[in-house]
Amino acid sequence: MQLEDLETPALLLDAPKMDRNIARMRARLAGLGVAFRPHLKTGKSIDVTRRLFAGDPKNSSGPVTVSTLKEADYFFGHGFTDILYAVGIAQNKLKHVADLRARGCDLKIILDNLESAEAVAAYARQLGRPLPTLIEIDSDDHRAGVKPEADELLVIGRVLADDGSLAGVMTHAGESYNCTSIVAIRTMAEQERARTVRAAERLRAAGLPCAIVSVGSTPTATYAEKLDGVTEVRAGVFVFFDLVMAGIEVCQVDDIALSVLATVIGHQRDKGWLITDAGWMAMSRDRGTAKQKTDQGYGIVCDAAGVPIEGLVMSDANQEHGIVSHRSGDPAKLPMIKVGTQLRILPNHACATAAQHGRYHLVRGAEPAVEELWERFSGW
Amino acid sequence: MQLEDLETPALLLDAPKMDRNIARMRARLAGLGVAFRPHLKTGKSIDVTRRLFAGDPKNSSGPVTVSTLKEADYFFGHGFTDILYAVGIAQNKLKHVADLRARGCDLKIILDNLESAEAVAAYARQLGRPLPTLIEIDSDDHRAGVKPEADELLVIGRVLADDGSLAGVMTHAGESYNCTSIVAIRTMAEQERARTVRAAERLRAAGLPCAIVSVGSTPTATYAEKLDGVTEVRAGVFVFFDLVMAGIEVCQVDDIALSVLATVIGHQRDKGWLITDAGWMAMSRDRGTAKQKTDQGYGIVCDAAGVPIEGLVMSDANQEHGIVSHRSGDPAKLPMIKVGTQLRILPNHACATAAQHGRYHLVRGAEPAVEELWERFSGW
Repeated sequence: MQLEDLETPALLLDAPKMDRNIARMRARLAGLGVAFRPHLKTGKSIDVTRRLFAGDPKNSSGPVTVSTLKEADYFFGHGFTDILYAVGIAQNKLKHVADLRARGCDLKIILDNLESAEAVAAYARQLGRPLPTLIEIDSDDHRAGVKPEADELLVIGRVLADDGSLAGVMTHAGESYNCTSIVAIRTMAEQERARTVRAAERLRAAGLPCAIVSVGSTPTATYAEKLDGVTEVRAGVFVFFDLVMAGIEVCQVDDIALSVLATVIGHQRDKGWLITDAGWMAMSRDRGTAKQKTDQGYGIVCDAAGVPIEGLVMSDANQEHGIVSHRSGDPAKLPMIKVGTQLRILPNHACATAAQHGRYHLVRGAEPAVEELWERFSGW
Repeated sequence: MQLEDLETPALLLDAPKMDRNIARMRARLAGLGVAFRPHLKTGKSIDVTRRLFAGDPKNSSGPVTVSTLKEADYFFGHGFTDILYAVGIAQNKLKHVADLRARGCDLKIILDNLESAEAVAAYARQLGRPLPTLIEIDSDDHRAGVKPEADELLVIGRVLADDGSLAGVMTHAGESYNCTSIVAIRTMAEQERARTVRAAERLRAAGLPCAIVSVGSTPTATYAEKLDGVTEVRAGVFVFFDLVMAGIEVCQVDDIALSVLATVIGHQRDKGWLITDAGWMAMSRDRGTAKQKTDQGYGIVCDAAGVPIEGLVMSDANQEHGIVSHRSGDPAKLPMIKVGTQLRILPNHACATAAQHGRYHLVRGAEPAVEELWERFSGW
């Protein structure tokens, strides 16, 4: 099948770029002497995940990270057993977690408060088996977690350790996405490491077990200089990369492996607009570059071979319509691209854009052939 | 099944509210003497669509509007034959359109430029059968369409009429979403009507056929005072309604039938945050109220019975995490809602939020039971 035969919009995945992104991250973390627990929430596909582990077939049972129990079900069904569900557990999911564990999945959960710890401990007692749990540490004041110096850390640790459920600590330095320089990301990576290791040390000093010290985000994993005391790193979006990551120098635009194929369906010449058939349903509503140095609208516009067209961005979106214009807004600067022409749009946020689609169309750089179709899933 | 047994996030649909929204719109358009061609892109579910036609079982073959050919395939498979695909046609979809028509689906397409008209006419000649096509009219300077007074209108009309493919005109006054008063919406509705009817009159005066005059958007359909010359109205989001529509007085917050059930999974007391397990993956990234009088963040926060909690909004979102805070940002004003508590979040944009989910959980107002599960689909 050729690109020109595809009904648009369609999600394209440049497999050689993806493989390069994976190899670079694996090499980097191996050099730092830590295990890699990739986050599968970006790809949500067994084919993408197989590529993530292609260099290390012995490890095809994991370790991996997921953002939903549906991902845990799916990847366990495909042979992955060492799974971390990295969203604070809700009580309504404990039965599902216990069922997966009873079937042989070494699923670990996280939490950051005493109420949840007591609920997990009570459930584990009722089961008569531990529910391995990491305490989420707030390493960057960004979202969730217990502060490493908080009294509550030890209280939670004791509740979990009581029935053998305390498995370690974890953090996600999400604030690294807001860093504006590589130096700032390096500093954030060291802060992420130091605060999480500090939490582990406090637990151990109190006589509590803390086998796992898990950190990670794509920016900090890309620029961390040392990871002493850390046992594993998580990262997800690096597999495809996107304009948000390019905007903070975590990748180059040329590293972005994901794009949406669109077709020009009309012109509004007086406004300087091309209308396409890829709207926010195809790109997502993510405007993650809006607050960066360069606002990329809904994405950078490339030709059908994936080469950016100077000055063109997807400036607005309706459900199934995209508006493409020159960055300057000047209608005179809009290149006359014929109705029927296919374009590739690079996304702001790969996780959000991929989530809008049910399959990947694999391509190889500028070549016009679709080499494979890979299914992906969404939902809970 | 009870709400408290659901794993969160989960999409809830309050069926009595939906039925009320449908009855109101049907009564309104019947009173104006026009046919109703509901847009199915909001629900993407045969169950929702059956409710849309429940008052008129004879019409269960349509007419309906769709935003993708996947919707056309699906609803044709469920017995709907009179279908308008209301996004400007791309050449790569003509074979799919022709296949549906060959199987007995009276699918109509739209376009707004000569290049597309020539491609459709050439394809129709090759098939030896017309491809019924509406010319999209730009009635509000919002997105796509030919201006009603443009010379191009007649040129396109002649190309399509040549082989019998010219079926009429259509418009979507998307600019009505940006109106800031009911008076402005009424004015926009009259402009939408007048400009589209004017285009139809110009075609007819040139000796060209124009059987269908199709207009519509939820705001203009809600407030139009007369629709003389219009043959049918399209509207979609009214079936569920949302905060964007409430923000421009097209509905009340109490009319919103769609919500996302979330669970509190943690607190960040110093910041005045509740952390939930419904992030942007569950709500979508749509921030449609950001430019309205009242910015609702990612949604208004209600208790598990659907009653808004004074002052609480979902103020930020990560992929699977929501942040709930008081509008004022004052941590002291955050009510202490326990970890484990379920909340319902009302969405900014029902089309975008529903698209993130694979099923609706039917509820009845504040009652805690889930009455039914309805499947929905996404993608292309």
